[in-house]
Amino acid sequence: MIPAGGAGTRLWPLSRAGKPKFLLSLLGERSLLQTTADRLARLTSAGRTMVVCGPQHAVAVARQLPELPEENIVVEPSPKGSGPAIGLAAALIVRHDPHALMGCFAADHDVRDQEAFARAVATALDAARAGWLVTIGLTPSRAETGYGYIERSDEVIVDRSSGVAYYAASFIEKPDLARAETFIESGRFLWNASMFVWQARTLLDQMARLQPRLYDAVIQIADAWGTPEQETTTARVWSAITTSTIDQGIMEHADRVAVVPSDMGWSDIGDWHGLVRLSEHDVEGNSFHGHVVPVATTNSAVWSETDRLVALVGVDNVIVVDTHDGLLVAERSRAQEVRRVVELLKERRRDDLI
Amino acid sequence: MIPAGGAGTRLWPLSRAGKPKFLLSLLGERSLLQTTADRLARLTSAGRTMVVCGPQHAVAVARQLPELPEENIVVEPSPKGSGPAIGLAAALIVRHDPHALMGCFAADHDVRDQEAFARAVATALDAARAGWLVTIGLTPSRAETGYGYIERSDEVIVDRSSGVAYYAASFIEKPDLARAETFIESGRFLWNASMFVWQARTLLDQMARLQPRLYDAVIQIADAWGTPEQETTTARVWSAITTSTIDQGIMEHADRVAVVPSDMGWSDIGDWHGLVRLSEHDVEGNSFHGHVVPVATTNSAVWSETDRLVALVGVDNVIVVDTHDGLLVAERSRAQEVRRVVELLKERRRDDLI
Repeated sequence: MIPAGGAGTRLWPLSRAGKPKFLLSLLGERSLLQTTADRLARLTSAGRTMVVCGPQHAVAVARQLPELPEENIVVEPSPKGSGPAIGLAAALIVRHDPHALMGCFAADHDVRDQEAFARAVATALDAARAGWLVTIGLTPSRAETGYGYIERSDEVIVDRSSGVAYYAASFIEKPDLARAETFIESGRFLWNASMFVWQARTLLDQMARLQPRLYDAVIQIADAWGTPEQETTTARVWSAITTSTIDQGIMEHADRVAVVPSDMGWSDIGDWHGLVRLSEHDVEGNSFHGHVVPVATTNSAVWSETDRLVALVGVDNVIVVDTHDGLLVAERSRAQEVRRVVELLKERRRDDLI
Repeated sequence: MIPAGGAGTRLWPLSRAGKPKFLLSLLGERSLLQTTADRLARLTSAGRTMVVCGPQHAVAVARQLPELPEENIVVEPSPKGSGPAIGLAAALIVRHDPHALMGCFAADHDVRDQEAFARAVATALDAARAGWLVTIGLTPSRAETGYGYIERSDEVIVDRSSGVAYYAASFIEKPDLARAETFIESGRFLWNASMFVWQARTLLDQMARLQPRLYDAVIQIADAWGTPEQETTTARVWSAITTSTIDQGIMEHADRVAVVPSDMGWSDIGDWHGLVRLSEHDVEGNSFHGHVVPVATTNSAVWSETDRLVALVGVDNVIVVDTHDGLLVAERSRAQEVRRVVELLKERRRDDLI
């Protein structure tokens, strides 16, 4: 199951509300959603792949993933966070198969090592069969303050030789730099990349205990799904749901949460700096997408969606993103602050640009 | 007389072959050509103001300066440098008035102090009446290596109390930095801004002596001017003329060359850095022309000709120029190298962009 939400405002002006990060082809011909589906196609069939997305993106998702059966593209009426999206998916899945194993994988992340990903999922599935709620945690490569961390403690006993699952002792959201550095030194903390594997039934049992109203809502919608009442029930019940994330609603409080460490070459492509880091560079450290003429320019990147010529003269560490209605020029190390542009545009009611 | 030539390639992508610097409105509503004409209108009438331009710009010049009589817009068949353009103007002027005083003022410079300009011209006219070829030299404000310098020596005796003219001892083109610094220290060197005042007859006499073939050519064209032979004579004679500048052809070798120092707040707006220096800044040193959203941005400038939103994030000392077919992002101190972009486009035969 692929929860396809989030706008990716830090990738403005390329990402927009109507064209979020997961629909964009940022690292090749295929979109991030498509490469996510490709990655899962190595592990399961299209018939067992589900996407949950918003109404604004349903058509694009349907066209980008023509192999998915119609009923596997679940359109939530409005964004309510990952908790309700994943809960609804689990409720729909158990109706088909009460013993189903389920994995959730974000639609807009990049994974370089497909073998390592497959091994981690295999280990996680073994732990899930044993009744654990499993997260796949990424070996951290730097003291990143923008991510959540998972602390691992004792090993969980599973039947598999391909990898190890640990008991997840705690979830820590976005630590400060000093704390992030102690996490890295300890070797016991992993990045939380919102990759989950469990039995759908196990998740729903925990949801019934920890978020009973949300549980009742998703069961009610699932019961109406495919009946003449689907639309009206979904609209009525969904609108009353409180927004929540699966981390805060379930994982941080649930029993028997495990984490499988993996070093799969993962990136959330969180901002332009992150994207440029993943792109190919020339000898001067430049990465160009479009019609670019550089003069005395180093470590810079251009992403142009227009036919215009982009000339760079004497700049270092600059990112230029050129679209038909918006142009961004940013210092690479300040790329996270692109989010602030979108906030300012929102304040100015420039919905046409966000 | 206003020689309206030169593309201003360092102001790409705004300046183009078809829309050179002098036709652009860079510092307000009116173009540099128009503000040059406005400056001269304080000293003379439109009937006595002449522009020499190329065929590609004749229509734009005619529309930008509707007050000029048709015969005062002289269209040279092809660019041959300032020497032939000014020589032809002088030859046409003496046919109307053999004793005419003539001034030449570049079409694409900025002057802030109109009173100082008028005083310098008045002093230069006095020296011109006494038979001198006069340049107006600008008091240098920095050891600029991109300009020509004029060395002054003894005072020239003129009848005027408003200013002083000096004998021009030598012309030095683009010195290196060490030499430019000695020029500034000496206090005897002035910037050559290609502002000239003389009797048209005096110039032609020197041209007859120093560039006899050019002299013959412009007299021959002037004789045919306004006759049925104008077009054919001009086409034939002009094409055989060797390109030259008035500085190298005449001023560096002529007798009785004087210089009138002036501090008129002059700029040749040679590149984007120069233009931004003349533009109004906000408290953070930013200067924006267009629809701009800055975040953590200082000492930067945007010139946008499109309707697009331009967002700047975390940049300092950057210039962004946004046109419908070309985008420039340059470090301010490297703005001179924008010329290199135009050279590269020429090599790539992208005439549509230059």
